[in-house]
Amino acid sequence: MRGTVLYGPRDVRVEERPDPQIIEPTDAIIRLPVTCVCGSDLWPYRGVDPVTQPTPMGHEYVGIVEEVGSAVRTIKPGQFVVGSFFASDNTCEICQAGYQSSCIHRQPGAPTGAQAQYARIPLADGTLVATPDLPPDDLLPSLLAASDVLGTGWFGAEAAEAGPGKTVAVVGDGAVGLLAVLAAKQLGAERIIAMSRHEPRQQLAREYGATDIVTERGDAGVARIKELTDGLGAHSVVEAVGTQESLMQAIRSTRPGGHVGFVGVLHDVAIPGKEFFFSHVHLHGGPAPVRRFLPELIELICNRKINPGKVFDLELPLEQAAAGYRAMDERRAIKALLRS
Amino acid sequence: MRGTVLYGPRDVRVEERPDPQIIEPTDAIIRLPVTCVCGSDLWPYRGVDPVTQPTPMGHEYVGIVEEVGSAVRTIKPGQFVVGSFFASDNTCEICQAGYQSSCIHRQPGAPTGAQAQYARIPLADGTLVATPDLPPDDLLPSLLAASDVLGTGWFGAEAAEAGPGKTVAVVGDGAVGLLAVLAAKQLGAERIIAMSRHEPRQQLAREYGATDIVTERGDAGVARIKELTDGLGAHSVVEAVGTQESLMQAIRSTRPGGHVGFVGVLHDVAIPGKEFFFSHVHLHGGPAPVRRFLPELIELICNRKINPGKVFDLELPLEQAAAGYRAMDERRAIKALLRS
Repeated sequence: MRGTVLYGPRDVRVEERPDPQIIEPTDAIIRLPVTCVCGSDLWPYRGVDPVTQPTPMGHEYVGIVEEVGSAVRTIKPGQFVVGSFFASDNTCEICQAGYQSSCIHRQPGAPTGAQAQYARIPLADGTLVATPDLPPDDLLPSLLAASDVLGTGWFGAEAAEAGPGKTVAVVGDGAVGLLAVLAAKQLGAERIIAMSRHEPRQQLAREYGATDIVTERGDAGVARIKELTDGLGAHSVVEAVGTQESLMQAIRSTRPGGHVGFVGVLHDVAIPGKEFFFSHVHLHGGPAPVRRFLPELIELICNRKINPGKVFDLELPLEQAAAGYRAMDERRAIKALLRS
Repeated sequence: MRGTVLYGPRDVRVEERPDPQIIEPTDAIIRLPVTCVCGSDLWPYRGVDPVTQPTPMGHEYVGIVEEVGSAVRTIKPGQFVVGSFFASDNTCEICQAGYQSSCIHRQPGAPTGAQAQYARIPLADGTLVATPDLPPDDLLPSLLAASDVLGTGWFGAEAAEAGPGKTVAVVGDGAVGLLAVLAAKQLGAERIIAMSRHEPRQQLAREYGATDIVTERGDAGVARIKELTDGLGAHSVVEAVGTQESLMQAIRSTRPGGHVGFVGVLHDVAIPGKEFFFSHVHLHGGPAPVRRFLPELIELICNRKINPGKVFDLELPLEQAAAGYRAMDERRAIKALLRS
């Protein structure tokens, strides 16, 4: 099959790779009609996370089940399925509490190499959720978004306790930040402040439910959020970047007793204890347990209540994956969809 | 009047000080039949927090209202009242959300100098809660505990979401940690693990509801908590120390999706972002909004449902305050009560 491989900073290639095979009896093999590039793929692409060997890329996926292992009970060949980047059994105590990305049998980064034509999915029964019917082609981008960026933005909004009567601010205008805006809207937030200085992203944020746009960053961004909230700060802030500056901006934009939901993978961040102590905020986040939200998200998408697929503003054949990475790296595209 | 003053490390004196006066029309003056030394007083006493000038000590108080300012409406002379170390208006949006220690009009460290015969309490209507009747003398220690250490331990247990079906671990066996055990029990926790290596404190912890005692600390303490919880960690962990080691011990003892409530004042602590990201825990705490809990705590005490006053294992006349500090510094006493 064809699949993408990262060889080093800014060197991503599409090449022939072995077809995935059933290894464990709980595996499934799925065929991927569409796949995509994630903001988090840019960390190794930019060399921030070192690449020590040629690495198959991609962890977001939807597709048709081709084959299942002998122990798979509920997932059947021919079904259209959506899964998450952490394979999970969905039965352990941690999964049952809604933290499938910390499942005691979790397999992080599974599948590896989903920017390809096929993928092996471990723990298929626990990891995959089938759609009620085979979805029409125009829903594929939204279902693909559910696999990671929508589920992650949704977790950020839930972790920040977005809801009725709340003012929610979102730090970060990538796909995850924009979909956190959508999630906050769906969760009933009264006011949603998107922090963005990019006009096309501001526009999509407004379409997804943002009531205010703040273009300032850092201390100026914090001051602007305070201005908009009677000096108190937002009730809920979603952090969807992962840097020291963005996390501190999120904490400082939150009122005492409020909630920060953080989903940007924290890189070289240290939270100062004393400031955090006196901030009185709640802090929760981490790798999103997307599996928790998939049944609800699939239903919202199939009933056309939400259109998260709009974050894909670039569509390319799989063979041109490198152009997708480049466009996202240069912030010319929010998110690139790849058709195989 | 007589009152304690800290002159420098381990130099605390009881001396003549001016009687407090009404300054603002929202003030009250109260007479303090009992007062006490707080674990947090040991930070400056030990020189960890620098003492730059002679400093009146004490922030925990109960007493009889002697006089009120012209704008005080609900608090009356002759009432017995309990207050908290943060004066608050109890009407602003932050107070109404239950975060009185971040009140927009808060006066931290108010009163200063409550290890004395009298104190001035700002924002009396918002800050003070009157008992239904004048309490009998034997309830004074428990009511005094409500003013800080009980309210703080209670906040830690609530921030950690202690409750039915939960396993709660408490890091720290000072008065706050012991009273967090009591709070977890009252909140209905199923299993309560106290971390302590001091036999008399272990005994009080058991009396307050601890089902297990763990004597190990640091990594060994974490391993022991995991052993006791099927390898998962506790649902809820209260951190009542405030050091880097104890906070990391708390985070690492908590299962994914679980809650850390931290009430130890964080000194020179930095929370490592990446580890925290993957821990999946909720983190909340800070200066306890004791005022939120006072009505409930006073009721529990006056109905003799709880006996938090047992943390006072040393009783001295106010004149011997220095001996109380010494005993706590040397861990010969959990908490010293001073009678004036």
